[in-house]
Amino acid sequence: MPELRQNRFTKEWVIMATERAKRPEEMRVKREARPLSHYVETCPFCPGNEHLAPPEILRFSKPDGHWAVRVVPNKFAALTREGEPEWKIERSRRTIRGVGIHDVIVETPDHALTIALLPPERVQTILECYRQRFRAVSQDPRVAHITIFKNHGVAAGTSLEHPHSQMIATPVISSQVRQRLYEALRHFDEFGECMFCEMIEEELAENKRVVLASEYFVAIEPFASATPFATGIYPRRHMASFGDVSDAELSDLARILRTMLAMLYVGLDNPDFNYVIRTAPAEVAGAKYYHWYLSIIPRLTRVAGFELGSGMFINTVLPEQATAFLRGIDVEPLASAAD
Amino acid sequence: MPELRQNRFTKEWVIMATERAKRPEEMRVKREARPLSHYVETCPFCPGNEHLAPPEILRFSKPDGHWAVRVVPNKFAALTREGEPEWKIERSRRTIRGVGIHDVIVETPDHALTIALLPPERVQTILECYRQRFRAVSQDPRVAHITIFKNHGVAAGTSLEHPHSQMIATPVISSQVRQRLYEALRHFDEFGECMFCEMIEEELAENKRVVLASEYFVAIEPFASATPFATGIYPRRHMASFGDVSDAELSDLARILRTMLAMLYVGLDNPDFNYVIRTAPAEVAGAKYYHWYLSIIPRLTRVAGFELGSGMFINTVLPEQATAFLRGIDVEPLASAAD
Repeated sequence: MPELRQNRFTKEWVIMATERAKRPEEMRVKREARPLSHYVETCPFCPGNEHLAPPEILRFSKPDGHWAVRVVPNKFAALTREGEPEWKIERSRRTIRGVGIHDVIVETPDHALTIALLPPERVQTILECYRQRFRAVSQDPRVAHITIFKNHGVAAGTSLEHPHSQMIATPVISSQVRQRLYEALRHFDEFGECMFCEMIEEELAENKRVVLASEYFVAIEPFASATPFATGIYPRRHMASFGDVSDAELSDLARILRTMLAMLYVGLDNPDFNYVIRTAPAEVAGAKYYHWYLSIIPRLTRVAGFELGSGMFINTVLPEQATAFLRGIDVEPLASAAD
Repeated sequence: MPELRQNRFTKEWVIMATERAKRPEEMRVKREARPLSHYVETCPFCPGNEHLAPPEILRFSKPDGHWAVRVVPNKFAALTREGEPEWKIERSRRTIRGVGIHDVIVETPDHALTIALLPPERVQTILECYRQRFRAVSQDPRVAHITIFKNHGVAAGTSLEHPHSQMIATPVISSQVRQRLYEALRHFDEFGECMFCEMIEEELAENKRVVLASEYFVAIEPFASATPFATGIYPRRHMASFGDVSDAELSDLARILRTMLAMLYVGLDNPDFNYVIRTAPAEVAGAKYYHWYLSIIPRLTRVAGFELGSGMFINTVLPEQATAFLRGIDVEPLASAAD
């Protein structure tokens, strides 16, 4: 019997289509192996080609002096860094000048690597770049909200294969983000409690959808996952803003994120995926009602007309089954790779 | 200079990325021609294979007695037709039994055809099936909302290539639909006017984003299109529910829909696309504030991490440029195809 499950945080319903259900292992990617080169002459993110990208904003170096992670402006930025956002009101139409910040975080000098294959301390450096840029850009009075995200693979919308993530700071808070804040605020008003903190506690107690639990974080397949293997990594401590993550937490996040991505890499054969940090905007950084987290979305299925037309998704893999499958994945064989 | 445009109907912002803008003709699909067979032995929707699909619900016949359009239950339905939707409340989790109706509308006996290539009177028959099933299923007390949609091509999420559309009736109104109703209601409260009627009037007066205008309908590239060539076909007469479309309107809609799809077929070389009818739910069928329309979404780009994380889209083709491009497409050469 299929069932509808409500995503508490968006109030959207998801159809768990048990009649067309797939076993988790059926979601494994079937593709021809095409090993990447470690260096590509025309790649703007490979070492020696730094002049092909705009001037560097931030760098972290390895003990040998070579860079480990670099941040540069996106050469094909969606928004321009110059000027002020100005509203234009013309009859019913609303336009704002496209002012904002669009950075690229180059995650490693090695063209062929990916976070699942990096040592945890290198993942920590990537996250340190995120935090440092997040805090700096949050100070810009033109910025209303910051989205940090990663596109891995063609199905996830990437155009450059060298491992990188991006940060886009916009002069508005999107309607989607406002809607999530509003639902969380309503919950707080009614129950005096953060709905994320409550959910984490319930999930840990029930232990059906918890894939990993570390000192400071919990990785969960959400009860109303819209797509197979969608995973949330939630801090145990209440924090609305990613900018408030501590050093100890960042180090722990690096390990759990890497292990989670390694499980997907091994279990589903290096699937295309996105991840995104869902954080409160700076203007409500201290909110008692919102809780930041990192959302991983493997891109194993296509969005079709029903999803576009209704906003509801049809998921063919139960999160409980995805959890059981992922818990059984051994990621140890990956542990020794490095650049 | 890039700009942000607000979608009035969802209040979401869209980034028009002029710095990475593409000319409309650059969006043409580049693929190897792979002509489809007119008949496929294993296809459950080809004539003679009717026994491979569940028993027929509705059929329209051609003058020669053979069927022109058929409606059957989806063999791999997302929801089950039997039983009552029942809410289950367990701590913070909400579940409903997956009761609903999932039909398939087989649009033509010819495996190789598509709406752009069908005669207008055959398109009208397809729309007549939509209306008849919409009206019948709206009577079912278990049904809260109906989504009629089409997936054309792999990028649009189709799994069967024989031309077909689908109808899914759910026991809930999705959060996305409620949100759109709510925004429209707010507008009506403030201005005493349907925001869709107002937009249609403004667009006709400005005439920069109107691709086609017929007696009863207008095809518009919306001011804040989230993706290249997204197109809305709006009835000129105020109607909240698709079920209220008249015979004369249905006949006109068939012609404008077919011409619009033919423009995309010729102009972009048969792109994958979805379309969906965005209608008010039966419970507010008479609403003064909502206005149904048909939304066509060519699937020319990928959704990436920024879109998933923020809800905002980055569009590289201005709707004004898409409009100018489409207006220049000659669809006459297609007019003579038939099954």
